[in-house]
Amino acid sequence: MENFTFHNPTRIHFGRGQIAQLSSELSADSRILLLAGGGSIRTNGVYSQVKASLGAHPTFELWGVEANPDYDTLMKAVDLCRRERVNLILAVGGGSVLDGAKFVAAAVPFKGEPWDILAKNAPVESALPIGAVLTLPATGSEANGAAVISRRAIGEKLAFLSPHIFPRFSIIDPETTFSLPARQVGNGIGDAFTHVMEQYLTYPVNAEVQDRFAESILRILVEVGPKTLATPTDYDLRANLCWAATWALNTAIGMGVPQDWASHVIGHEITALHGMDHARTLAIVLPSLMNVQQQAKRQKILQYGARVWGITEGSEQARVDATIAKTRGFYESIGLKTRLSDYGIDVAVAANVANRLAARGVTKIGERGDITPETVEKILRQAA
Amino acid sequence: MENFTFHNPTRIHFGRGQIAQLSSELSADSRILLLAGGGSIRTNGVYSQVKASLGAHPTFELWGVEANPDYDTLMKAVDLCRRERVNLILAVGGGSVLDGAKFVAAAVPFKGEPWDILAKNAPVESALPIGAVLTLPATGSEANGAAVISRRAIGEKLAFLSPHIFPRFSIIDPETTFSLPARQVGNGIGDAFTHVMEQYLTYPVNAEVQDRFAESILRILVEVGPKTLATPTDYDLRANLCWAATWALNTAIGMGVPQDWASHVIGHEITALHGMDHARTLAIVLPSLMNVQQQAKRQKILQYGARVWGITEGSEQARVDATIAKTRGFYESIGLKTRLSDYGIDVAVAANVANRLAARGVTKIGERGDITPETVEKILRQAA
Repeated sequence: MENFTFHNPTRIHFGRGQIAQLSSELSADSRILLLAGGGSIRTNGVYSQVKASLGAHPTFELWGVEANPDYDTLMKAVDLCRRERVNLILAVGGGSVLDGAKFVAAAVPFKGEPWDILAKNAPVESALPIGAVLTLPATGSEANGAAVISRRAIGEKLAFLSPHIFPRFSIIDPETTFSLPARQVGNGIGDAFTHVMEQYLTYPVNAEVQDRFAESILRILVEVGPKTLATPTDYDLRANLCWAATWALNTAIGMGVPQDWASHVIGHEITALHGMDHARTLAIVLPSLMNVQQQAKRQKILQYGARVWGITEGSEQARVDATIAKTRGFYESIGLKTRLSDYGIDVAVAANVANRLAARGVTKIGERGDITPETVEKILRQAA
Repeated sequence: MENFTFHNPTRIHFGRGQIAQLSSELSADSRILLLAGGGSIRTNGVYSQVKASLGAHPTFELWGVEANPDYDTLMKAVDLCRRERVNLILAVGGGSVLDGAKFVAAAVPFKGEPWDILAKNAPVESALPIGAVLTLPATGSEANGAAVISRRAIGEKLAFLSPHIFPRFSIIDPETTFSLPARQVGNGIGDAFTHVMEQYLTYPVNAEVQDRFAESILRILVEVGPKTLATPTDYDLRANLCWAATWALNTAIGMGVPQDWASHVIGHEITALHGMDHARTLAIVLPSLMNVQQQAKRQKILQYGARVWGITEGSEQARVDATIAKTRGFYESIGLKTRLSDYGIDVAVAANVANRLAARGVTKIGERGDITPETVEKILRQAA
């Protein structure tokens, strides 16, 4: 196990009716920016519950945060916060709204050009407090210090990390997710599953707590995923999905272990080129990446196959192949097709993505830095 | 799954040489009380590492915190803190020193008689910040908001809980535990194992993350426990033990699930009567409690047997019996005998403990409140 520092200060109110806890998180002088995406929270009752909990506190609202939140939209929120002396950013929505809230929280007190936080890794020395009412289990953003922001005007999509942007509190009521479209739920399950794999399917460092917790989350997603899609109003199924998705990326399983994230790097390029849902790109990339990187990842693939899928019979190669097939089958079982052709995308994307990465100097990705643009091309060719 | 609020704000520096991180946790005006037990930290190098990290910060020391920390000792520390305007309590040692530090931290700013915090559940509205350098993996006190304090002068042993006493930071360097006596290591493993069982072996509420994380910790303790006793200087084994022991009682696996704690209640009485090590009392009580309570706990015993011990064959009763036998065998494998007679204690203790609990009105314990003094007597008779 490698050395690490673990710190996750987010307070999480989880369960039925927990939006009512929002009022306990406010102080007498709270001035709130409510940040939201589209109108679904108006129709599923979340918005009215939030407003009831906010009571008479001065509340300003900014709607229209996009999937892949956009810098220009968020800068309007920054202006609003500065003008109205907002002291709490409340994200009501999914991971995109949360990521947007994190950027706004960091940008408001930032001295200088906020774009530098993303483009130049300018240090974030403080941020407004952030709260969240999560309505989509997927990204783990409700309990971590990371955010991904897009700037469509110049075709950029960049991430930043800071201990100051962990939400002060997050509220997760599984019932508020019952009405989500199946496509969004499937995407969320696939996203959470891949988050675990990025932190787990690397090489062994004898980190047993991290490994077994990762395997636990994977097994839960495998068991619960198809069932909660089939019966979306079963509370326990949805609650287990929500809590598993939080743990998939609340940093606990990533402590003291190598991490990969190559599937995300490659997937982001496919989204940039073809506008494909993030989770679908991961479902395309990961099974193929496992196949291409099967030597480097062999020990963990065998461990994952045995502990998550019960694959213990046959030759080592047969077990590796069966484990990759099971992984592919899992994505398919939650409605995520795993071939470029399933989405009508030509195999030419393989060279395009490789060239884009090479042009930006992204030439050594993965936990060993051994995934070159050539490897990326091979991975995507095999995913045709 | 039941509703819950989860919040664990402790920052943990984990790994080789991490005591050096202590200096990063101090501010220019830090005035420190170093709280310690016996002299082992002088011989194993921990004290000199701590002193080097504290540098020139004003540091006051109070040594001699007992196993089962004593109120009268701790009140000397409270006086010292008030006199010297200490603003950080630094526990250097195991769970007893940590629990003592938590009481001191709460007592210093407390208005009124500090004993009321324990005896009358007087509300703790603030506490001095607490830091810890942990030298014994066992209690989880390095990452929770609970403490147990004894007052030998009047024969009391009482607990208190507060969100204000979670350590601000804890440092865990597995190498500093290599020199611990086998008896203390075995006790620590048994203590951590039982902490998990108290939160897990109740009745099912479909809390899959909590269940699978609990089973993960149990499996790790089963695998790592005997090995780390046999090869105490193997870093990865010891690191996995340390990290598993923290997760055994950092509140994560206890969220949204019923909890038992009857083995602890009963065990505390045996310690009070016979001065037996805490972990040994748990090793005596838990296997017998599982047997007596096997109807109420049946579903979870079968789940635990299958997932932790791989017991899936035979009749339900055969699997329950085999699972209890495996649990007993585990305690024995780490050096904890599981019968009263192994420690020369007469079966008369069964009625004594039952009477003591009845006299204090402790008549309904366990996750269903169905363990009466009569049941306690039966449990201890079967543990003869």
